[in-house]
Amino acid sequence: MGGDHGCGVVIEGVKQALQSLDRISRLYLVGNETEIRAALHRLHCHDERLQIVHASEVLTMEDKPTAGLRKKKDCSIARAVELVKNARAEAVVSPGNTGGILAASTLRLRTLPGVDRPAIATVIPAPENEFVLLDAGANIGCKPLNLLHYAVMGHVYSREILGYHRPRVGMLSVGTEEGKGNDLTLEAYKLCKKVDIHFVGNVEGHDLFRNRVEVVVCDGFVGNVVLKTCESLAKGLLTWLKAELARSFKRRLGALLAKNAFRDVIRRMDPDAYGGAPLLGLNGHVMKAHGSSRERAIMNALRVTTEIIRHNINRHIQDQIAAANEAIASPASIAAGVLA
Amino acid sequence: MGGDHGCGVVIEGVKQALQSLDRISRLYLVGNETEIRAALHRLHCHDERLQIVHASEVLTMEDKPTAGLRKKKDCSIARAVELVKNARAEAVVSPGNTGGILAASTLRLRTLPGVDRPAIATVIPAPENEFVLLDAGANIGCKPLNLLHYAVMGHVYSREILGYHRPRVGMLSVGTEEGKGNDLTLEAYKLCKKVDIHFVGNVEGHDLFRNRVEVVVCDGFVGNVVLKTCESLAKGLLTWLKAELARSFKRRLGALLAKNAFRDVIRRMDPDAYGGAPLLGLNGHVMKAHGSSRERAIMNALRVTTEIIRHNINRHIQDQIAAANEAIASPASIAAGVLA
Repeated sequence: MGGDHGCGVVIEGVKQALQSLDRISRLYLVGNETEIRAALHRLHCHDERLQIVHASEVLTMEDKPTAGLRKKKDCSIARAVELVKNARAEAVVSPGNTGGILAASTLRLRTLPGVDRPAIATVIPAPENEFVLLDAGANIGCKPLNLLHYAVMGHVYSREILGYHRPRVGMLSVGTEEGKGNDLTLEAYKLCKKVDIHFVGNVEGHDLFRNRVEVVVCDGFVGNVVLKTCESLAKGLLTWLKAELARSFKRRLGALLAKNAFRDVIRRMDPDAYGGAPLLGLNGHVMKAHGSSRERAIMNALRVTTEIIRHNINRHIQDQIAAANEAIASPASIAAGVLA
Repeated sequence: MGGDHGCGVVIEGVKQALQSLDRISRLYLVGNETEIRAALHRLHCHDERLQIVHASEVLTMEDKPTAGLRKKKDCSIARAVELVKNARAEAVVSPGNTGGILAASTLRLRTLPGVDRPAIATVIPAPENEFVLLDAGANIGCKPLNLLHYAVMGHVYSREILGYHRPRVGMLSVGTEEGKGNDLTLEAYKLCKKVDIHFVGNVEGHDLFRNRVEVVVCDGFVGNVVLKTCESLAKGLLTWLKAELARSFKRRLGALLAKNAFRDVIRRMDPDAYGGAPLLGLNGHVMKAHGSSRERAIMNALRVTTEIIRHNINRHIQDQIAAANEAIASPASIAAGVLA
């Protein structure tokens, strides 16, 4: 029911996903049954793997997450998360209110053993590689231990889903030397050095699009600002270039001849290619699809989710978090007071 | 003596500035006299407004700022700042070690009355306007009162130097509602509402390149990360597009026809057009030129500096800071505990 374009667009994306993804054995559509049935009928979407789970309410973009969930007991996101909690589904995908998805899944699924806080992990394409940035906004205030966990979870995600054998993990900071950063990143840096990931130390904004890292760790405030700034700048730059290209006949002709080059860049930068961002660290797989998702984004969010299930990334995360917590809790670490 | 390209490039920029800027009545070149004389001779730069001030040492990019200044008493940046302190010069411009310039000017010039911390103010071009982002990295840890002062200083800079009659000032955060942000921005938001600037509230990364603000306020950690990410993304995107445009004859032909469009965008985005970023809040005008400055950047840094002097922005900053400090110290504000 969530998302900016309503139920029909979601169903169209679902239809495409079912056509191309054999792996899906069952797909629950959670929300207003009448509306969903009408959309399925309208779009000629009939697949025996589909099952409707009725929910009488919707958590809207205007609802405050926690208060909204308390008030709207029968809202679709709560019902959808319940399917995962009750092991009827292996993952939940939603283009709805991010805070609502986060609150519903944290409250009902809880975090994985050893993880304090979940993180939103956003994949960002760069010219020569792609990297996962986390946290992109799940937690505004955070502790060094949370950043360590983000590093471990990002490492697992980048390895299992993006396919980097040994992803390079960097701490986003204001200088590459170990001594550069704020209190939070300085402490987290020390923790990250102790665990079994390919931690390359601090990275600066300069390094993000230069093939230096496949995982970028930062708190949710910084991550959210960076992510949205990148989206805004990329869009702004292309709009700007477009306007310049329209200024004369010669330029328009040039743009026409070169249009495939633009198309290729735009396509690779398109957030719809990823469809959304997973919430990592929860005791269940949760995918936040973009609120502005169109069919293709919904389809891709479902595709990536099937990959997440296939790789069972939560099992990997749980194992690696346990190892990391043990590594930093070794007597030497406790003596050094890094857990203080 | 600073900068990545050595003395000659600086002198070439100085030569261009002296040719085009009548306003400069005297220009001190501070550093190794022999080297400077040789460069002046080599570049046929003879202008009676030039005066060499010898300094036997250079604070390099490898020096730790404070320790370096203690050790190298006769370094060029310290000598240059002294000229301002002793009122022999109205401003200092340097492409050297940022930390060194910051430390030397904070130690010797001190901050303006009422200002706790200086800020690096970087102007960033957007498709429809330009905005000043501060702090771009002068202070990593900061207090709500510092952010208020950044807002006031950015307001003055944007009005006097960028020419916006009533610049819109935004607090960089993770949502536009007043309740969105971290502890620092939430407190600073309350302070900014009380003072006489056009405070538009929170802005997100999404808003930066959409003509929503002419001043963006954030702590030095966030500002530094955002600035460097933008530079990296813009450069990465254009490199990417260039590679795509080279892939076929048709694309190469298109790119050739449209090349002026690219040139126009690149030129407006070029950080050399601004030449550097002023350090605001100090008891003297200080301009940090880019370390990688070429002739044009040095020339532009000097040009902007003459504007800063002409508008005497420090007088405006001092007045508006005094008014702001008074506004937030009113009995009602004290009762509300905003200064706590």
